[in-house]
Amino acid sequence: MENTKCDLPITNINLAGKLVARKSLSHQTIVDVNGVKIGGNNLVVIAGPCAVESKEQLLETARYVDKYGGIILRGGAFKPRTSPYSFQGLEEEGLKLLKLAKLETGLPVVTEVMDTRQMDMVCAYSDMLQIGSRNMSNFPLLKEAGKTEKPILLKRGMNATIEEFLMAAEYILSEGNNQVVLCERGIRTFETIYRNTLDLNAVPMLKSLTHLPVIVDPSHGTGHRWMVGHMAKAAIAAGADGLIMEMHYRPEEALCDGNQSLYPEDFHKLMEELRVLAPAVGRGIVHSELVK
Amino acid sequence: MENTKCDLPITNINLAGKLVARKSLSHQTIVDVNGVKIGGNNLVVIAGPCAVESKEQLLETARYVDKYGGIILRGGAFKPRTSPYSFQGLEEEGLKLLKLAKLETGLPVVTEVMDTRQMDMVCAYSDMLQIGSRNMSNFPLLKEAGKTEKPILLKRGMNATIEEFLMAAEYILSEGNNQVVLCERGIRTFETIYRNTLDLNAVPMLKSLTHLPVIVDPSHGTGHRWMVGHMAKAAIAAGADGLIMEMHYRPEEALCDGNQSLYPEDFHKLMEELRVLAPAVGRGIVHSELVK
Amino acid sequence: MENTKCDLPITNINLAGKLVARKSLSHQTIVDVNGVKIGGNNLVVIAGPCAVESKEQLLETARYVDKYGGIILRGGAFKPRTSPYSFQGLEEEGLKLLKLAKLETGLPVVTEVMDTRQMDMVCAYSDMLQIGSRNMSNFPLLKEAGKTEKPILLKRGMNATIEEFLMAAEYILSEGNNQVVLCERGIRTFETIYRNTLDLNAVPMLKSLTHLPVIVDPSHGTGHRWMVGHMAKAAIAAGADGLIMEMHYRPEEALCDGNQSLYPEDFHKLMEELRVLAPAVGRGIVHSELVK
Amino acid sequence: MENTKCDLPITNINLAGKLVARKSLSHQTIVDVNGVKIGGNNLVVIAGPCAVESKEQLLETARYVDKYGGIILRGGAFKPRTSPYSFQGLEEEGLKLLKLAKLETGLPVVTEVMDTRQMDMVCAYSDMLQIGSRNMSNFPLLKEAGKTEKPILLKRGMNATIEEFLMAAEYILSEGNNQVVLCERGIRTFETIYRNTLDLNAVPMLKSLTHLPVIVDPSHGTGHRWMVGHMAKAAIAAGADGLIMEMHYRPEEALCDGNQSLYPEDFHKLMEELRVLAPAVGRGIVHSELVK
Repeated sequence: MENTKCDLPITNINLAGKLVARKSLSHQTIVDVNGVKIGGNNLVVIAGPCAVESKEQLLETARYVDKYGGIILRGGAFKPRTSPYSFQGLEEEGLKLLKLAKLETGLPVVTEVMDTRQMDMVCAYSDMLQIGSRNMSNFPLLKEAGKTEKPILLKRGMNATIEEFLMAAEYILSEGNNQVVLCERGIRTFETIYRNTLDLNAVPMLKSLTHLPVIVDPSHGTGHRWMVGHMAKAAIAAGADGLIMEMHYRPEEALCDGNQSLYPEDFHKLMEELRVLAPAVGRGIVHSELVK
Repeated sequence: MENTKCDLPITNINLAGKLVARKSLSHQTIVDVNGVKIGGNNLVVIAGPCAVESKEQLLETARYVDKYGGIILRGGAFKPRTSPYSFQGLEEEGLKLLKLAKLETGLPVVTEVMDTRQMDMVCAYSDMLQIGSRNMSNFPLLKEAGKTEKPILLKRGMNATIEEFLMAAEYILSEGNNQVVLCERGIRTFETIYRNTLDLNAVPMLKSLTHLPVIVDPSHGTGHRWMVGHMAKAAIAAGADGLIMEMHYRPEEALCDGNQSLYPEDFHKLMEELRVLAPAVGRGIVHSELVK
Repeated sequence: MENTKCDLPITNINLAGKLVARKSLSHQTIVDVNGVKIGGNNLVVIAGPCAVESKEQLLETARYVDKYGGIILRGGAFKPRTSPYSFQGLEEEGLKLLKLAKLETGLPVVTEVMDTRQMDMVCAYSDMLQIGSRNMSNFPLLKEAGKTEKPILLKRGMNATIEEFLMAAEYILSEGNNQVVLCERGIRTFETIYRNTLDLNAVPMLKSLTHLPVIVDPSHGTGHRWMVGHMAKAAIAAGADGLIMEMHYRPEEALCDGNQSLYPEDFHKLMEELRVLAPAVGRGIVHSELVK
Repeated sequence: MENTKCDLPITNINLAGKLVARKSLSHQTIVDVNGVKIGGNNLVVIAGPCAVESKEQLLETARYVDKYGGIILRGGAFKPRTSPYSFQGLEEEGLKLLKLAKLETGLPVVTEVMDTRQMDMVCAYSDMLQIGSRNMSNFPLLKEAGKTEKPILLKRGMNATIEEFLMAAEYILSEGNNQVVLCERGIRTFETIYRNTLDLNAVPMLKSLTHLPVIVDPSHGTGHRWMVGHMAKAAIAAGADGLIMEMHYRPEEALCDGNQSLYPEDFHKLMEELRVLAPAVGRGIVHSELVK
């Protein structure tokens, strides 16, 4: 019989001796991204475009993120695309625009790094490094990320088990960097009506197994703009420590992921709903006044 | 581009001409189970043991369901088990105990029917018929259920697409019975750390496609007692119209599914949390005073 | 370390005490379908249309089955279809046509039974009962099949594990009928370019675990006519005891599964190829002369 | 209706304008690995240990590969392991041992490259570069591989669709290197009794869509030594152009994948069986006499 009385719930995997393993109910890492604390009682909302496309696009979108309560700006300068002929990102030019957006809005920025050779460059421009789903098992990249002093946003591979996800984080921690945030972003199943199947079971499971913060990406987890708000709220109710969502000042013009990017007004409405929901599950939301 | 301005969100499947298809945002079926309305603004909580095991077990558990705010009693008299040597249910004796529990507590009862030949007998004792996951594509059984006047609780097959799930419901509606409640209960994926992967994406997707009520089973959707509360809350935040959960007066003695059955005190605590959560997402909860 | 020296290969599941369990390398059940032996050294080829559609269609197709070396005729009179508005089969009229085709060609017939109430009728007209994928976990149906004296063709559920598949067979054997042939017909995965993913790993795995014969359905396992021959040969090389394939005298007019149905000339060519392949893997093919 | 009369079979995806697309039935790339031709009528067998562990281990194993008819030697010097605490490979020392084994046996060698920074080093020691499953969507690595003049062995990601697999190859071809061999090695499904589910449907599907050679890895595709021979034969019957298999002179001492590594005598027996099977499906086998 599973025990509800013990300190930690019983699960199927054994992480004895691993750095990622939670040792007690109160054992919780707080990841600090330029003063924004992830993993505490207050929820963190990260938002921004899929890809950095232009100065106007990024700055306009960043202003909406800031205005409506997002606390970290996301945006890709290096984009992993299925086809070599799709837009691959603005690369260093995109990183510079992220830095600019940070200067104007004060929001820390998170952006993806895909290649060990880009690590220094990406570190120079960003506050947090994202390791994307397709690279969750790119072990040389994980090791390099573990050697930096940047907080890491590690996304679950679309076919990764919970155990493999945690061991990917272990690669980072074992190099000395314990500032890792785990992100559930949907897994691949037989169901193709959504882009991915958002696995919210992963939220309580990960929270029980590890002391690392856990956030959710309902944009990739659904692939449909109109579903994002529903699943963002579900993620918070399941116990997530925050959200990362795609928002674009003009989704119909987006170079990638337009269908799953929120309009600024969608984001505004969702933030209002989250401000009602969070206290009902015993949480607050990180406000920019608390940080800047 | 997907449109957020239109009346109904855009999805990938076409249900034109189907009876299950939602025609407008206000098109919503209310299923009536002996006065309990499913599909309206108020959430419905169904609870009870996996299987009916004995008079004491069922009555004791039913009293807890009633005491803490469950409004329909569940319990299996015919059990679909992977092994022919596992407990297969008390059959008609179990149905009689359900009737007895209903008489004592006033709670309507829902129980599974597995065979077209049992249909009349199960109808004679229960207020709502459950078609289980393994029988979601048992088309003769669906047709027979469609010929009864009982409300039907149709569970999603563990490998069924959203489209197949809706077409299974169409089998029932096409026979003249539109009192169908859909239940997401987890799908089978590569991840085995949970019993199933609860697919909460299905909740907003189904709600957008059909006028039928949608509820969630976080017990089968997780397989772990300690996860049930987290996912019950997530289901409600995602927009579900209710929950069906396994609760047992003594889970450690249960003949099946003990690991995923709530203790009465777990159920009590969860109901308290749901009473806080529901209004934060614009919902109420059906109370027994409103029904009896 | 896994052992190659022991009598039976090591696997992950334990079937101790189960009737389906293979006890030694030489422990092999031969299923007899009106004189056609399945499970011996000679391969058995079952062919025919997805559904019985008309006298002409069935008789013409049956003549081709016989002419080119098929030894059992398949054809559905009761069809499990995703939509209630699709062709559901000719029912008893279809069974009568199967009987007629048997009288003319001498081929034994196998047809699907979907409902416990149809069992007697289907037994009256057919030589072998098929339990389809959607009913692999329809336990009342399995039990009824176990009470008959007919050989049973049990197809793997599209989401069934090997263990669940074997336990479904156990339901039949536990009722006293050990004349069961297992059929791998493709599982549901994330890959949708084929109708199903044919799991040929299942062939050696099942053969190692159970004494029951194992055949393969490359028609449903691929969904594309042009792939059927490739996978039929692969199945035989993997160790299958036979094949069941869809063939139609005019696939472009078929009421169901036309895209995966072989033309008679495709079937002819494949049979010629199998006659070359079989001896190269130490097998023969059951010829009609040996049976009639 | 699908057409069997046209030059190329009909499939669900459109590769118009892509470099990987097959243009006619006779359009076939032959990949040349130091004189060994992959993609012609003769099958190519690649074998060797999972990881290079020591001089003795590699040389002894390589001698068996050569003796029994393998034509290319495999062996990992950089190993992608789920845990950071597992053996990660001998790195450059391993590459040197591969070079030594080549000098002694005359077999060309294929080994995995995991990091863009290692590309030059791995090229210096090996005849063919392997991109492993976990890196199939590591686009910077694919691009670097496309800039080399080495033939590439690209393994399918365990969750990659056929379309994604082909687009990964397109990344290599678009950089100017068309010497790419595709390798099916099993996908991840709900079935866990095997390490992966070998998807042999992929063989005819890939062969119909692309002019690149297609080989199969039955070691990773099953995870069980005793299954390897069965699935190797099935792969050939399905139309594969060759095989890559793990073989170890002492599997019980292997540092990784011992359970799926063939003993030398298993490999010998299998090669004998393949020499019988190949002509039965119209193929030959590349012999070392033809190459050296």
